[in-house]
Amino acid sequence: MKKSCVVLLSGGLDSVTTIAKCFHEGYDCHAISFEYGQHHSCEIDFAKYNAGIYAKTHKVFDMRAVFGEFNSALINNHSSGIGSKNFPKTYVPARNMIFLSISIGYAESIGCSEVFIGANAVDYSGYPDCRPEFIDSFQKTANLGTSFDGKISIKTPLINMTKTEIIELGMKLGVDYSRTISCYFPDNGKPCLICDSCKIRETAFVEVLNAK
Amino acid sequence: MKKSCVVLLSGGLDSVTTIAKCFHEGYDCHAISFEYGQHHSCEIDFAKYNAGIYAKTHKVFDMRAVFGEFNSALINNHSSGIGSKNFPKTYVPARNMIFLSISIGYAESIGCSEVFIGANAVDYSGYPDCRPEFIDSFQKTANLGTSFDGKISIKTPLINMTKTEIIELGMKLGVDYSRTISCYFPDNGKPCLICDSCKIRETAFVEVLNAK
Repeated sequence: MKKSCVVLLSGGLDSVTTIAKCFHEGYDCHAISFEYGQHHSCEIDFAKYNAGIYAKTHKVFDMRAVFGEFNSALINNHSSGIGSKNFPKTYVPARNMIFLSISIGYAESIGCSEVFIGANAVDYSGYPDCRPEFIDSFQKTANLGTSFDGKISIKTPLINMTKTEIIELGMKLGVDYSRTISCYFPDNGKPCLICDSCKIRETAFVEVLNAK
Repeated sequence: MKKSCVVLLSGGLDSVTTIAKCFHEGYDCHAISFEYGQHHSCEIDFAKYNAGIYAKTHKVFDMRAVFGEFNSALINNHSSGIGSKNFPKTYVPARNMIFLSISIGYAESIGCSEVFIGANAVDYSGYPDCRPEFIDSFQKTANLGTSFDGKISIKTPLINMTKTEIIELGMKLGVDYSRTISCYFPDNGKPCLICDSCKIRETAFVEVLNAK
């Protein structure tokens, strides 16, 4: 039987590289995406495009009713109440915890014991839910709280890679990065080129080109 | 400032007792409930009724689009793929993990650091996500993956109580148990009196009456 996995696919650079890697390693990929009221919901179109190439199935879960009650610059221009001083405004409360929890329940339902998420070190820069410690702890919790009983594995193949290394990997795998978006505040599907996420992405592309 | 908490309120015996306890201890209670396609969605009406008494605010999150993709006897009469042999059919994949994750994000958004859930020892009987080990691990994970940074507390005041003790506590607090439901397969809002949950509830009520 072919190996299978669930992949969190936002439509950004990291998640598209992750699913391309899984696909090339021979996995049947079951992609899931979330509509949560993000300003950059155009990323869903890029997720659909790439799922068409790399995924066996793709579900887009509508979580707008839930996240509509949350505070984040990424959703409603507010910040969250606790510890917000030290956090990027674009932090969304418990986002990866919620997305990963849903991916675990979905994996359990379809009989899949590997979940891939494109969290990485560069993305960390202030997001607590991209840290290896969080992912490790989440995996332990998921094994305790489900029927997996030790068998669920949360895989983060990009976690120790720089953005430049990620792009180099994706280019080897034939990823079309023009069909991904990293910008948090795009206008009609076009990146702002000003936000942190745009800057990190652009710097990395320049590095990749200079290295050639 | 008055202390405040988020309470998971299903409309069942345990969660209603939990919110009544929080209310009597002087908390401003922010209740959250989930519509997830459960056969016993009439519990939401009981949640609303009790929120009217005990809660300062009440949100009902519609998660039917997500759970509609899951397999459980409680939703679509199917069972889940992994480890299902040893599990009650009514197990819903990752349910408490998903509900708790959302409650953490919501708590973070409204600036609240205590989350109450009415998980208890009797409910355990096969549900991994009612075990103290799971709750402890979840709390650690939530502290790592959010801005709470050690400050979030998941409280389970009923975890070591029997169903009989829970009912005795609720009766002291004036809970109207006729406005709660525990049945998994009710008919027009009336309990089946056959399912495990109905049997556990009835046995406990008989014990409480006999002890008087």
